[in-house]
Amino acid sequence: MKEFQKSELNKVIRGVNRATYNIDTVSSILDAGFIGFISYTYQSKAITIPMAYGRMGNKIYLHGSKKNRMLLTLLQNKAASITIMHLDGLVLARSGFHHSVNYRSATLFGTLSQLEDPIKKEEALKCIVDQMIPKRWEKLRPMTEKEFNSTLVVEMVIETASAKVRDEGAIDEKNDMNLPIWAGVIPIKQVAEFPESDTFLSENIKIPKHVLNYYQTHKAQ
Amino acid sequence: MKEFQKSELNKVIRGVNRATYNIDTVSSILDAGFIGFISYTYQSKAITIPMAYGRMGNKIYLHGSKKNRMLLTLLQNKAASITIMHLDGLVLARSGFHHSVNYRSATLFGTLSQLEDPIKKEEALKCIVDQMIPKRWEKLRPMTEKEFNSTLVVEMVIETASAKVRDEGAIDEKNDMNLPIWAGVIPIKQVAEFPESDTFLSENIKIPKHVLNYYQTHKAQ
Repeated sequence: MKEFQKSELNKVIRGVNRATYNIDTVSSILDAGFIGFISYTYQSKAITIPMAYGRMGNKIYLHGSKKNRMLLTLLQNKAASITIMHLDGLVLARSGFHHSVNYRSATLFGTLSQLEDPIKKEEALKCIVDQMIPKRWEKLRPMTEKEFNSTLVVEMVIETASAKVRDEGAIDEKNDMNLPIWAGVIPIKQVAEFPESDTFLSENIKIPKHVLNYYQTHKAQ
Repeated sequence: MKEFQKSELNKVIRGVNRATYNIDTVSSILDAGFIGFISYTYQSKAITIPMAYGRMGNKIYLHGSKKNRMLLTLLQNKAASITIMHLDGLVLARSGFHHSVNYRSATLFGTLSQLEDPIKKEEALKCIVDQMIPKRWEKLRPMTEKEFNSTLVVEMVIETASAKVRDEGAIDEKNDMNLPIWAGVIPIKQVAEFPESDTFLSENIKIPKHVLNYYQTHKAQ
């Protein structure tokens, strides 16, 4: 399977030419970040909360306290949607109407369940930490039983998804092309600055390779 | 009024010490960006879509095509919530449990109505464009009647809101402080790169001051 199936739920209606259901595209958008906007209904109102996630194949992992209102509500509903967006540029056209942004976004729909199996639960937590910064988990102090037991881990199986990508310049009306108005794109990037070591770190602990690697691959060019 | 009233809807339950209801704080989070995640319920499922917004006082403006499923659904429901988040850093602790992020986020709840009055509608569209990049609207070709009539503008009056801000280093267990594990923060910033002029721009049109100003205030340091 290379594409997610289209349904009334995930079918993109506005801006069809920018839509894709390609699984690799959706996965690459997911893997370019680690914060997703998770939607849920509370007292018949839709609310969205940003949350860290990890992706492994067609599964998304979320975690939180066992008292987390959103996760508990999601588990009751057994379904959720998650939206991820990366802003890539301001598209400044000659008219207000054609102003836009360059971006990559994905929306996932899936069913949820709580992970109880200790091995799967730990794999999911490793996945969430390593989604934020690769190879971090193996460097850490192992979880205590108390931490493990107080953490709720939720698995979402992605059932369908769609992505939208815009990556081009301003698209103006033909009649506007000769107006004396500047048009173009301001590229936007999310970048990392140099890592700041913890104040209480022993002096002989240097910034490790996985942290420097993250900085090198994410710093401003 | 300096604070939003707390209700069951906006009261922050997890991480109370990071929560604020201060109107100035919420406004500054809103004004540091222009993309919000708007939640709505479709076929009894909560969905979130990122959208450009403009803020003027206690009002948020959204716009889209008159056929936009989300905006039409929101107008039917007469209520919505919007979440904005800025990621400021990866907080890498000595244990997986204490990994976190530095961020500024705000969630708004309000009632919605469609703007019909032409003057208010144009002010709202100006507000949305200038939220993206200040002083842009006045440089643009005026809207045509056709564009104006095909655009749906929605006003949300913010009724209540909450914000959460985390801005500190790793908070580890006392017993972990002497472990030979690097801890610290990788600061994250959203930055602008140098503006790219449109390919079809006449050669004598230079990058204008408001675009260069945006670049100067948003470029990587």
